[in-house]
Formats: sequence, structure tokens, C-alpha cells
Amino acid sequence: MAVHDPGARSIRTDTRVVLRLSTLFLRTLREDPADAEVASHRLLVRAGYIRRAAPGIYSWLPLGLKVLARVEAIIREEMEAIGAQEVHFPALLPKEPYEATNRWTEYGDGIFRLKDRKDADYLLAPTHEEMFTLLVKDLYTSYKDLPVNLFQIQTKYRDEARPRAGLLRGREFIMKDSYSFDIDDEGLEASYQLHRGAYLRIFQRLGLEVVPVTATAGAMGGSRSEEFLHPTPIGEDTFVRSAGGYTANVEAVTTVVPDAVDFTDAPAAEVRDTPDTPTIDTLVDHANATAGDRTWTPADTLKNVVLAAVLPTGEREIVVVGVPGDRTVDLKRIEANIAGHLETGGEVAVEAAGEEDLKKHPGLVKGYIGPGLSLDAAVLGTEGSTGLRYLVDPRVVSGTAWLTGANEQGRHVFGLVAGRDFTWDGVIEAVEVREGDEAPDGSGPLIAARGIEMGHIFQLGRKYADALGLKVLDRNGKLATVTMGSYGVGVTRAIAALAESNHDDRGIIWPRNVAPADVHIVATGKGTEVFEAAETLTVELEAAGLTVLYDDRPKVSPGVKFGDAELIGVPTIVVVGRGLADGVLEVKDRRTGEAQDVAVDEAVALLRELTAH
Amino acid sequence: MAVHDPGARSIRTDTRVVLRLSTLFLRTLREDPADAEVASHRLLVRAGYIRRAAPGIYSWLPLGLKVLARVEAIIREEMEAIGAQEVHFPALLPKEPYEATNRWTEYGDGIFRLKDRKDADYLLAPTHEEMFTLLVKDLYTSYKDLPVNLFQIQTKYRDEARPRAGLLRGREFIMKDSYSFDIDDEGLEASYQLHRGAYLRIFQRLGLEVVPVTATAGAMGGSRSEEFLHPTPIGEDTFVRSAGGYTANVEAVTTVVPDAVDFTDAPAAEVRDTPDTPTIDTLVDHANATAGDRTWTPADTLKNVVLAAVLPTGEREIVVVGVPGDRTVDLKRIEANIAGHLETGGEVAVEAAGEEDLKKHPGLVKGYIGPGLSLDAAVLGTEGSTGLRYLVDPRVVSGTAWLTGANEQGRHVFGLVAGRDFTWDGVIEAVEVREGDEAPDGSGPLIAARGIEMGHIFQLGRKYADALGLKVLDRNGKLATVTMGSYGVGVTRAIAALAESNHDDRGIIWPRNVAPADVHIVATGKGTEVFEAAETLTVELEAAGLTVLYDDRPKVSPGVKFGDAELIGVPTIVVVGRGLADGVLEVKDRRTGEAQDVAVDEAVALLRELTAH
Repeated sequence: MAVHDPGARSIRTDTRVVLRLSTLFLRTLREDPADAEVASHRLLVRAGYIRRAAPGIYSWLPLGLKVLARVEAIIREEMEAIGAQEVHFPALLPKEPYEATNRWTEYGDGIFRLKDRKDADYLLAPTHEEMFTLLVKDLYTSYKDLPVNLFQIQTKYRDEARPRAGLLRGREFIMKDSYSFDIDDEGLEASYQLHRGAYLRIFQRLGLEVVPVTATAGAMGGSRSEEFLHPTPIGEDTFVRSAGGYTANVEAVTTVVPDAVDFTDAPAAEVRDTPDTPTIDTLVDHANATAGDRTWTPADTLKNVVLAAVLPTGEREIVVVGVPGDRTVDLKRIEANIAGHLETGGEVAVEAAGEEDLKKHPGLVKGYIGPGLSLDAAVLGTEGSTGLRYLVDPRVVSGTAWLTGANEQGRHVFGLVAGRDFTWDGVIEAVEVREGDEAPDGSGPLIAARGIEMGHIFQLGRKYADALGLKVLDRNGKLATVTMGSYGVGVTRAIAALAESNHDDRGIIWPRNVAPADVHIVATGKGTEVFEAAETLTVELEAAGLTVLYDDRPKVSPGVKFGDAELIGVPTIVVVGRGLADGVLEVKDRRTGEAQDVAVDEAVALLRELTAH
Repeated sequence: MAVHDPGARSIRTDTRVVLRLSTLFLRTLREDPADAEVASHRLLVRAGYIRRAAPGIYSWLPLGLKVLARVEAIIREEMEAIGAQEVHFPALLPKEPYEATNRWTEYGDGIFRLKDRKDADYLLAPTHEEMFTLLVKDLYTSYKDLPVNLFQIQTKYRDEARPRAGLLRGREFIMKDSYSFDIDDEGLEASYQLHRGAYLRIFQRLGLEVVPVTATAGAMGGSRSEEFLHPTPIGEDTFVRSAGGYTANVEAVTTVVPDAVDFTDAPAAEVRDTPDTPTIDTLVDHANATAGDRTWTPADTLKNVVLAAVLPTGEREIVVVGVPGDRTVDLKRIEANIAGHLETGGEVAVEAAGEEDLKKHPGLVKGYIGPGLSLDAAVLGTEGSTGLRYLVDPRVVSGTAWLTGANEQGRHVFGLVAGRDFTWDGVIEAVEVREGDEAPDGSGPLIAARGIEMGHIFQLGRKYADALGLKVLDRNGKLATVTMGSYGVGVTRAIAALAESNHDDRGIIWPRNVAPADVHIVATGKGTEVFEAAETLTVELEAAGLTVLYDDRPKVSPGVKFGDAELIGVPTIVVVGRGLADGVLEVKDRRTGEAQDVAVDEAVALLRELTAH
């Protein structure tokens, strides 16, 4: 009987074709591709898994497709195991649903947009919250229909400003995205935890180390959110961990806020001449030289940095951020946290203000900017003379006294007290997290690391359901807005991360569960016996359920064959060659390099055991 | 041991989730969707397989995805069985390769175009000849590397002017496309025949009747080509067949050309007044009334029809087509055959010339147009006074004499002899094929039928390899251009065609090989025994390798459950209900409606037998 499974995207059959290198559509490359910055990109191209079609857009060759199929299958199984049901949305979508949630505008340049022949607007979907929301709205009407978890494994599109590192940051890529729909917060929390567990199992089965870190939600909105970061030096994300188990994306780290200081007896602020002190260093040197009552450090100064927030509409809003002078402003942390302070939604880009920006605000004296000398004479802040929004680092608590600009060329104010002499429009996480900073949960000092985001789980809440009107009847027969979660795994990115963290000088070393084959058989030598024995072994292994990549090329040297085997990275390599005269084959572990001679008639049993997974 | 197959897009496992209607993301609809013109569209939406996202763009629900997976698997197996290797190209592609072959222009409005943030031009690929050609060029260098057959199952995009009939003509759809690469014509013919065989097996396994018909290649270029048409009254393609086995797309039917006539003794042409005879009927009536020496019929007249060829560049070229007056001009046949007559490549649209077009050519006297009275006084033709290209039907052979316009208001010329009095720029298949016309191979009169194109195989030849420089070293060490074939199957269209030809008033009746499940179990009644027995049967069938759709909804009436089962269309329905008290179940065949009572303990064996495939 033919075994089949309509739940899978394909079906196992007995007609499976053995992968023979004599006919496989594969040419390994000796040279690194010119544009490859990272090992995974270099090796996936050289070993014949993928090829570049355009910046950030790749074609998949036969071996690459086999790895992709195995990764997808693991993800599909774990999603189905938590009761998620597979659907598939179009990649080409009309604008309207994305307009209803404002993401059509918020995505700015980040998505591909196009018009059809009737001049209607479309986009290539970067993610599908809107469509899933509308589908559930279309089909479901009652709390009794919930919860429901839906997923798809689908090609997504983002017009990245800087596509890089091969599959790690592409413009066309495959994601598994899923969405949960619940009637209440407890349900959402349960769906979230189901996904969290599934994600940990997926990454464990893929053989991919991940650290779940608390994250901010960025443009997705909503509340609770965790990223699954794969630690690697080439990661774009910085995250921190503490000995006590705290982990977070740096964007999400919150500062341990000092207690407010009683300023009843604080001396009055005093403006002094500080000629030629436009930088923190020159200011601190000048203070130590002239105000010798104490030692001044950059941490005593309040640095006011002028930034431009670029809104999704393209508008620029000038904002001033006040931070301790020993700290460096972190634009990504500001970007992650600023939206709530502005009258806008969506992704805001933040950059240093330029000369043009400053010209428009003559009240800002470059190098000597300060909040103003008293509450009545405020310079910064929406109520100040400049009218510019003023946000401060959480360390600027009431009662702290600062050395900061006096808004006059060559003058600073000493002992300006927060809350007494100046105030602000909001508090923002604005500076770089440093190793040694305290974890917010008191679990010890933070250590920094780099990682790649492999997965992300969000509690979206009711943002999308509200915008698109997804309501169902609740237990009392009243309409209630559904609460949602959104969950993603980077499928093609996972393959790059696996290659990145599983390679040596000679090539890739795939974890067993995702390798393009279980065993790579290399036939070396010229005698027909060698090829006959290799062929027999291939057939026997396939019959035993293993997949074999068989290098049957007749006129290729052993050196080239070994080189290709190591480059391609199947975890177990079997050499059928010289030893055959003595009735043995060589079985090599690609990762450790260890080799053992095995009697021909024991080979199948040993290989079954070695490759069991 | 976990069974796995990296060659498939997914993997069968023991964690397979039973499809239970109590939780399945499915709501059948009682009402037909407003926009559904054909049964397959109506039923696939009502039964919860697909939903419309935009014109010609559909989302796939869980049951739809299961059918899709089975169709894809059959196609994948048959492609692999002929040694084709699977790859996967991007859908989003840069303009340049399509410019090199001129298809960027030729496709006109028919493709989706877009720009990225750097203003570079991209398209959503409608088909991938260019990319496959470049990939083989990239990797292969020698005749020894050939032949190679590559395929993908991929989402394609076409900006159809009139997306219609659900999945039958969509704008985002799935195709299997493959490409063969050979060093010589014999190799191409062999690759073509391999595909032809695979396609016949694919459609046979899908349970989809197809007729292979000779076709023209349209915009694809190249020479030999066959379409696999599924006969159905709603088909957009008309094809013809003869009793003797000839089949062809009407665009590809060639006329049986009459022998040339000796005109040595033919009388001279004569211009006569024929007032108020702007139509063929009025002209024939007038001739019979006034030139009573013989009986005149429309077949004696030469009708000259003014057409506008709309080139891919948007330019309009006015062309006149001369056809026997008893025949109707067929714009689709002209479109399929005109490109070779114009100085352009690509798809040319042909339409009746409008008033504006005619105004520009005052030499054309409406209702009285003719080729001119003598070779020296030609009116039509690039050498004639109008300069307009003049193409004639193949029946206009040398020596035939015609009654046609004299290019003066109210006058016609009698006995104008082709080749003696007038000539033409080219011969074109320009008129509708009629039932009763002779098949070109002499196999008898033609019968007309309608069909949907399910697959298409082309011998492209060297068009793409030439344009993109795909050459390899031949046996003599010289560079030789590779010859290619291109082969397509409409995957999503096949599903629509299957539903279209396998339904009744109550719903779909899937062929076994593509059904979303093998058995649909309906539990009816209120007792827990019924649900327990149905559950046991479900588990036993799944353990036996069958897939089950189990209607376990506790508070739904038997009528609704039966209605849903018939709408969904699983070929075998098992009712677990009243009969259980007597130890029997009812097993129903969805297609025939036949039902039989089966003892509970014999059910698994019977169902295994019924559903074996």
C-alpha cells in the first residue's frame, strides 16, 4: 500500500531517487564568492546549496532544497503538535487591510509596493497579521470557536536597506509565521506558552542553540514579547545576560532607577564661564581645574543630544535627549522606545540631527545646550523656549544635581537640580547598556553577547483585532474583541545560522537532523569492484531508510571527492576504496575527523546506529 | 527509527494530527460566493478549501492545503522518476535577464513590475526560462554535463486582464515548471518525450482527463509544442479533434491548402457598380440579381478586414486581412500567428480597427476595400498605395478568382485573380476553424470541443540559450549553444479542474488520489457509544495508514453533518450511528451514493480495500 500523508507538503514513496554526484545538479566552487562576508554565506554558495539571484534574493539548488525540506518538516511537526493548523496566504496582497492597521504607512521604505494594471496598490507581504485577523473574522463568530492557532510556512518580502550575509538578512526569505486567537488574556498567555515550548523544541531538534530574551515589540505593537537569539559573533543583535539568569535584547533592558534624592538642602545652581568646553572631556577637565572643591567625572555632567526622529510619514521631529555624560547614546534603544513619546505609531528611525536641523532651532547653542536655568526659564521641553521635546535617561531622577550647558557660548551651569531647576517631557532608555550594569531583576551584573534573531513570540493583544473589527460573542452573548499572539521562525535564516555555527576551514558540518543526506559515500579507485561495493551499500542503506549522497563520479580524484564531501558537510562519510581488498570500509565522522575501519558486512548496522535520529 | 525523506518537502511522522471537525479551521458556507461563475470556484469556497484575498488571488485553508500537498506530491514523484531535479528560484527577480531576452518588453501589462528602494526594476516572475538558463550557464561547461532536467513547484504571478473562475485563471498561482538542456536536437526530442510521458502519468494519477493537442508556442518562441487540455464546457480554449486521431488547439490548426489554379484562360477582371452593398450579404444578393450568369455565394467573395495589431511596445500597426467572405475572422488565431509577419517579437494583441485608425488611411473605402485592380495599381500591401500590410487566408491561392471591393464607394470588382491581379505580403491562418473542416493530416473532418490548458510542453530550441549565451564545449571541443525545452503544469489550476469535473449538486467528489482524506467518518446521535465507536474506528484507520476526516461535533444535527460531508467530497463516507446497536456501520460511496451496512469489526479491512490507491 502506498503510504501517504496529505498533511505533509509531500509524500514519501518508494520511487525515491538516490542522489548520485555523477548526475546531481551540483558544482562545488573552489573560490569564495566575492560578496560573501560571513562563513555561512561563503560555504552555502561554495558547496552548492544556494546561489545569489539579486541582492538578498537567492535560488535554491537541489541540496539546499533538501536541507530546507527537513527544517520545514521539523517546524511543521512541532506546530501541529501544539494543535496549530496550517494555512497559506498569498504573498501578493492588496493595500486595504494594511491601511486599516496603518502599517501601509508605517512600513515606509521597508516593503515592496506595486500597482496592478488597474492601478490598484499592492504589497509583497512582510508578515500577515492583517490577513489572519480577517480570515478568523470571516469564519468565526463565537468564543466557542476559540482558541485557534494557525500557521503558514511562506515566502516573505522585505525591502531591507542593507541585505547582507547571504540568507541571514535577505529580501525574499521563508518564515514560519503563526497567530493565536483567544477570547481572554489567560487564553493568550496559554497560547503564548504553547508556542514558547514548541519553539524551544524546534531549535533543539534543529541543533541550534538559542537564548530566549525579553524583547521590545517594535512595529508589531502589543505587550509581552521574547526573541530566540542564536549566540554568534556575527549576530546583529546585542543581548545581555546575568549570572542569575536574566536575558534581554539590549533594546529591552531597563535601567535600575536610582532613588530620588532629597534636594531640600541642595545649593543653588550657578552659571560659570567655561570657555572652549564644547565636549564632555574638555568640560570635565575645566571643572577639575577651576572648581577644585571636588573631583568631577563625566558621570556628573548632563549631556543633551539633539536627535531627529524620522516618522513613518517622512516628517522629521527634533528631540533632545539628556543623558549622563559618561554614557553613549544608543540610537537603536531610543528607536525601540521612542514611539510612545511621539504623537505617532509605527517604526520611527532616529538619527543625529544635522546642521540643517540645528539651523532651524537657533535657541540651541551647540556644545552648551542645557535644559534651562530654572523651571520658569526652561529652554528644552515642549513648554520651554525652544518647544523641543525633552526626554531624559532614567538615571536623571528628581534631586540629582548636574553640570550642564547654560545655553550660552562658553558657559555651563553647575549644580542644576532635576525636578527643582528643570523638568522633562518623558523618561526614555537612551544609552548603551554596558557590561557590568545591574540586571533590572537584581540577578547580578550584565554580560554582553551577540546573536541572530531566529524566532520571535509576541503577545499582540487586541491591536489588530481592534483595527480590523475581529469580535466574537462571549459567554454572556456580548461582542468581545479577540486577543492575538504572533509568532515567527526564520526558516531560511535558520539554515544560515546552522551553517554559521557548524563549520570548519574545510566546509559545513550539518547537524544530523537537517543534513541533506544521512551518509555520504565516496568511491575511490579505478576498479569496478569499488563502484559495485559502493553501489550495493547505497542500495542497502536506502532500503534501511537512510538517505545517501553517493559520489559515483568515475574520473574524479580521491582528493577532489574528499574535499567535496567535507565542503558539503554530511555528518558521516564512508570511503569505499583501498580497504575493500581486506573487506573493510572507512567510516569517518565529519565533525571529529575520527575514522574507523568497518567490515563490509557490518557497515549497514553500524551506519543505522550512527545516524539514528 | 524515524522515517524521513529529505527529498520530499515534508516528512511523515507518527505525530500526525487527526482532522477533527470539532477543532478543524473550517466553516462551510450555505450560500454561493457572489463572484463565483463556475462550479469549482463556488464549491471550493463553500466547502472551505480556499478563500478570495483579491481578484485572482486566493488563500488556502487547511483542507485546501491537504489537496494541494497531494497534487504536488504526485507531480514531484513523476518528475523525479524521469530524473528531473528539483530547485527553487525566487519569485521576485531583477529585470536584466528578462531584458536580455526582450520579455521585459514583450510581456507588456501581463506581468507585475515593481521597483526596490534603490529604484531598481524588478518583476514577479510569470515563468523562469531566463533564470534556469543562467543557472545552467553558471554551473555547466561541457556536453558531458548534459542532458539535465530541472524543475520547481513555485508560486507564479501574472497580471491577468480578466482573472476569472477562481483558481482556473488566477494572478497568483502555483505551477510546476521544468526545463531541459540538451546538446543536440535528438537530445531535446528525448527530453520532450520524457516529459510528455511524465505528464500523461501525472494527469492519469490525478484522475484528470486530458487530451494532448498540437499547440502554437505564443510568446514562448520555439518550435514543437503540445498542450494538455482538460475537456470541459467552461474551458477557455477551443480545440478540435478528428475521428482519425488528429487533435490541435484551434490556434494551431492549419488549413488544408487548395491546389493553385491555372489562370491562363481566366477572363479579365471587371469593375461594376454595386450600389449599397457594404456587406457580404448585400453584395451576394446584388450579384445574384444582376450578374445572373452563375450563382454567387459568400465563399466567392474576398472580404478584406482592417485590424489593429497592438505591439508589446504599445504601438498600433494597421493590417488588412483578406479572407473568403463565408468565413469569420478569428482574432485569437491571428494573434497566435501574426508575430512572424511583423517586425517585432513578443505577444501581439489584435483587435478590429477603430474609426480613428480608419481616418488615418483615407485610401480605405469602408465596405468596398479590395487589394486593387491590377498588380500595377495595388492598393493593399506594403507596396500598394495604402502601404498597409496585406495578409491573406491560405485559401486565397494563386489563380483563384474573387468578387471583392474596388476601393470606390458602391463599386466592386468581379473575377479578380489572385497572383495575376493582386498579391499579398504573407499568408496567415486568419479564420475560425469550423466543424467539418478537414484535418490537416487527412484524418477526417474536425469536431470542436472546449478545454482548459492543464499542461504545456515546448521545444524552445536555442532562443533563450542564444539570448543569454548558454554554450558548452561539444565533443570536438568547440562551443555549442544548448537547446532547451520548457514544460509546465498548472498545479492550482489542476485542483480547480478536478473539482469542476468531479462534483454534483451537493458538492465535490474528489478522485481518491487527491482527496483531503481517505475516509470521512460521521458520528450521529447523542449516545457516548457512538462517539466512542467512531473514535476507535478513526484511530484504527489512521494506524492502518489511512487518513480520516472525523466529524466529532457533538451538537450538530445529522443533516448538517451529511450535508457537509457531501460538500467536502471525501470519496468514502462512514456513518456511525443508529446501526451501531446492531453492530453495523454504514459505508457510503460519495460518487454513486451507494451505501452498505458493514459489521464494525470488518470495517477497517473493507475501508483499506476501498481506499487502496
